[in-house]
Amino acid sequence: VGLIFSQPIGVFDSGLGGLTVLKALMIAFPYEDFIYLGDTARIPYGSKSSTTIARYTEKNIRFLQSRNVKAVVVACNSASSVLPQVQTDALVYNVIEPGALVAATMTENKRIGVIATRATVLQKAYVQALEKIDREFQVYQQACPLLVPLVEEGWEEDPLTNLVVYRYLTPLISVQIDTLILGCTHYPVLTGAIRKAVGNGVRLVDSATAIVDLLKKDFSSGKLAPRTPESTGTLHLLATDVSDAFQAQAARILSPLPVPALEVVDIH
Amino acid sequence: VGLIFSQPIGVFDSGLGGLTVLKALMIAFPYEDFIYLGDTARIPYGSKSSTTIARYTEKNIRFLQSRNVKAVVVACNSASSVLPQVQTDALVYNVIEPGALVAATMTENKRIGVIATRATVLQKAYVQALEKIDREFQVYQQACPLLVPLVEEGWEEDPLTNLVVYRYLTPLISVQIDTLILGCTHYPVLTGAIRKAVGNGVRLVDSATAIVDLLKKDFSSGKLAPRTPESTGTLHLLATDVSDAFQAQAARILSPLPVPALEVVDIH
Repeated sequence: VGLIFSQPIGVFDSGLGGLTVLKALMIAFPYEDFIYLGDTARIPYGSKSSTTIARYTEKNIRFLQSRNVKAVVVACNSASSVLPQVQTDALVYNVIEPGALVAATMTENKRIGVIATRATVLQKAYVQALEKIDREFQVYQQACPLLVPLVEEGWEEDPLTNLVVYRYLTPLISVQIDTLILGCTHYPVLTGAIRKAVGNGVRLVDSATAIVDLLKKDFSSGKLAPRTPESTGTLHLLATDVSDAFQAQAARILSPLPVPALEVVDIH
Repeated sequence: VGLIFSQPIGVFDSGLGGLTVLKALMIAFPYEDFIYLGDTARIPYGSKSSTTIARYTEKNIRFLQSRNVKAVVVACNSASSVLPQVQTDALVYNVIEPGALVAATMTENKRIGVIATRATVLQKAYVQALEKIDREFQVYQQACPLLVPLVEEGWEEDPLTNLVVYRYLTPLISVQIDTLILGCTHYPVLTGAIRKAVGNGVRLVDSATAIVDLLKKDFSSGKLAPRTPESTGTLHLLATDVSDAFQAQAARILSPLPVPALEVVDIH
């Protein structure tokens, strides 16, 4: 049983975005070991079909199981939204339901906006999760395909990005949402531009804090076994494509946490 | 020998962009059979490493060979730029060298601009091809990662797109290029915005016309065997991801040519 306790937690995303989730988990659970997998050879997921996203997700979960993880956190919203189509016997956490739960506690007028990739919007995963909590919720979705490329271009402080964000958010503002789910791991980087567009009256929900709350609960209840806290946990950083930029951006996002050298893995 | 003449020509791209090349080929060679392959499950190529792009390219060429093609036109500039790393015994055409040849005949002041994906810029394939033609050419490259997502979002007529295009082209205008290579199959769709940014003094080179010229030459010389012109050629349209949008956009790009139903194929 001692061995089981020392198994790592796997975190996977289509690319870099999930590192914001990983960082929140590492800070909340400093004694856990983590393995992060970025599927950078097949990024992005959000513009692809649910069949293809489900196939990639299944392979990534199986790969993380081969590295002996005790649970897999699917940090990518697009992958989370197709999990019902994925065959797996792993303990899998998605970011959709925790995010919906947090939004449900925040809204007062029951009008909730969701910005996400095209795939996540098509799956209506947030709509279903929110309606399961309260049938009276009005959920307004907006696909924002340009936001990920803008973040990857490093233009998050650019006036052009403000224009694009404003364009996408205008329909949601006009229906008077009071809560907005940032339904893609890249979007928290754009909080400045998003805040400018929606004003101070709208609450923002990001996946990272929501998933931390859920894991805390499962550690408390015993559903998830904690690692014996003999020493600080370790991190393995894996990606499916080689990239110098990945290493640098990982260091920037995870700072001040130490970042190991990237290991490139081949997943077919 | 008769059988060989009736083999189709394979055309491949990471997605839809190469359909502009396919259309030019179908109009120039109406008696040829074509097989088009869009690797939409792994799009985009332009932001990935040369190793990964070369692996995908090799697999796609091998797949087209299994469909008995007599030649493969690599319409994707990012894939074309890594062809030296690809192992193949197929007759392969890339879009880089024909584009460089056309640009070389157009320039007067020997200052040539290239806009392309990050991968194509990193490989310096256009720089090398142009310098091989004339050592005195000054080649200025600019990576434009946001242009493909803007085209995919359908914002080609949008003021925002003009702003982004202007931002990318300003450095090239300031060094007084007189010829600009559109080094990605998506960019011809943005000709309006690009023309607005560079003015009328700059000549634009797109891959489609350049590759048609080269194939004409190879048909004349006998390097490439033409199909017996008994009837108009056929088209097979393949993609690696399912997508309703692909079918609709293919019809729009290829119009008025007839478009067959999309066949989804699995390539690992």
